[in-house]
Amino acid sequence: MNLKTLGEFGLIDLIKQGTIVEPNGLELGIGDDAAAFWPEPGRLQLLTADMLVETVHFDLKWISPWQLGYKSLAVNISDIAAMGGRPRQAAVSLSLPQTSSVEFVVELYEGMKSIGREYGVNIIGGDTVSSPGPIVINVTLTGDVVPERMIRRSGACPGDLVLVTGCLGDSAAGLAWLLTENPVEQAPHLISAHLTPKPQVSLGQAAAAAGATAMDDVSDGLASEANEIANASQVGIIIYADKIPLSSELQCFASRNGQDCLDYALYGGEDYQLLFTMPPQAAQCFLQLEIAGSCRVIGEVCSERQVTLIANDGSKVAIKPKGYNHFR
Amino acid sequence: MNLKTLGEFGLIDLIKQGTIVEPNGLELGIGDDAAAFWPEPGRLQLLTADMLVETVHFDLKWISPWQLGYKSLAVNISDIAAMGGRPRQAAVSLSLPQTSSVEFVVELYEGMKSIGREYGVNIIGGDTVSSPGPIVINVTLTGDVVPERMIRRSGACPGDLVLVTGCLGDSAAGLAWLLTENPVEQAPHLISAHLTPKPQVSLGQAAAAAGATAMDDVSDGLASEANEIANASQVGIIIYADKIPLSSELQCFASRNGQDCLDYALYGGEDYQLLFTMPPQAAQCFLQLEIAGSCRVIGEVCSERQVTLIANDGSKVAIKPKGYNHFR
Repeated sequence: MNLKTLGEFGLIDLIKQGTIVEPNGLELGIGDDAAAFWPEPGRLQLLTADMLVETVHFDLKWISPWQLGYKSLAVNISDIAAMGGRPRQAAVSLSLPQTSSVEFVVELYEGMKSIGREYGVNIIGGDTVSSPGPIVINVTLTGDVVPERMIRRSGACPGDLVLVTGCLGDSAAGLAWLLTENPVEQAPHLISAHLTPKPQVSLGQAAAAAGATAMDDVSDGLASEANEIANASQVGIIIYADKIPLSSELQCFASRNGQDCLDYALYGGEDYQLLFTMPPQAAQCFLQLEIAGSCRVIGEVCSERQVTLIANDGSKVAIKPKGYNHFR
Repeated sequence: MNLKTLGEFGLIDLIKQGTIVEPNGLELGIGDDAAAFWPEPGRLQLLTADMLVETVHFDLKWISPWQLGYKSLAVNISDIAAMGGRPRQAAVSLSLPQTSSVEFVVELYEGMKSIGREYGVNIIGGDTVSSPGPIVINVTLTGDVVPERMIRRSGACPGDLVLVTGCLGDSAAGLAWLLTENPVEQAPHLISAHLTPKPQVSLGQAAAAAGATAMDDVSDGLASEANEIANASQVGIIIYADKIPLSSELQCFASRNGQDCLDYALYGGEDYQLLFTMPPQAAQCFLQLEIAGSCRVIGEVCSERQVTLIANDGSKVAIKPKGYNHFR
């Protein structure tokens, strides 16, 4: 069935099913002028938004509607994770061509509801409009956080260690793989890192509780995010190339193509891992926690205001932010 | 300057100036992974979103970037008003062609900041992305409301009166006027009703405090909104044609074109006035308030589940929702 046949209100009736996964604290979901929810005492409210545009952020040739829905919410959940927060309520706005099929929209929402169940996120409202242009998806997400555990980008201090959760570069390599149209099953880890990234909410909260001083999610590549933290904190950051966690699938893929893994990690982006800073003693305790098993120290914070990579041969290179920059 | 020259981060630096008009309760605005604000004790949080697409919702031939910014926020503020709430924090996502000028974006935000100052709304985050397609603007707005004064669509009871704030039909007539390309200064009231609508926040709160039982903003025309309230409340509504407030400018415009004013009021939409129901005694008190000077009783709630218009000659017509429906 196409959207024209179903109409806007039929569509809303269809998509609102299964959107509430956590009724606690929710007063009113989809269907009125606004949704309503109760903040918890002693928790601060967070709000973030990300917009995805067809052909700019995704291509339906290589991402399924379900995966697209999953990822649309994942990128927002990752922003809440990077504050040390817990994601709560989402508003989803869709701009769709009149010829879009109902099945497409239903699958898109199934993906969103699935990650919603995984992370305790309700979809409580939004807007659905027709468009002559590409598909545009905007997700706005609220979250809450224990006030004294909200981690900004600006708190890094010289002497802090720099840590990262999980491996970097896999998502960009997954995209490169998809673009070559090689069989998907030959690089399952890279592909899923790109299409259905797992935001690090629990680790973000654990790092915040353990004393993280600054945190960012790796959406635009390590080079860009390290510069973001360094600039916001008015410090410098030294990264050791040999300590950047790289998956074996990425290493195979890069070496087969005569490419450098580090390029993917530094400039690829969309990993949705967390990059954070922490005083050495706190980091020592943190790394002993079971939940921190995937975390690695990759560098340290210094006072000289630039981001420097120490290469495997000991040489130093200044690292500029070269992640994806819209309009550039 | 075009956006390509300025880049995404330059753009963010530019637009974040002047976005905070009410620092009270705000912890963190634009510039980190998420924004953060403190809800007030005893007030419920509201969340709403509206997406505007170029050529579907607006045409830059007849709306200026400033007016577009103003209206983008106005339509969301109106949704919060229709709950009896107070608008608070906005996240703005923009999807823009690479060739958009920086001046366009700055003017758009100036319009948003202007209505923000008027209604106490902060812009605390969002996203800005490039697009090959039409301009898409998504605003997500939070609000708060005294819990026992949140007015849903579903509370109307037989015997309640039906009231409306201000005149209906002006906005649609303003659009019709713009499309004829007649001189704008000949219909200033209709034009401003369409381009820079004034959400009825104070009246929404006053109506809620006075005992409104159901409320909706008139975004899709009186016919559509009356049906929304009737359906949600499982009641019927009777509207008296001769009681629907119509401006003199609308009457001149319609009669000159051989059209019926009522068509604009019933099916035009985008008035962003409030339609609400209230028990007769409460309405009597409410209408004596100075703030309620623009409010009129236009009908009553009945138990027979349909929306009926009593025409000037006494004949009855069932009124179906025929406002704008995306994908139809």
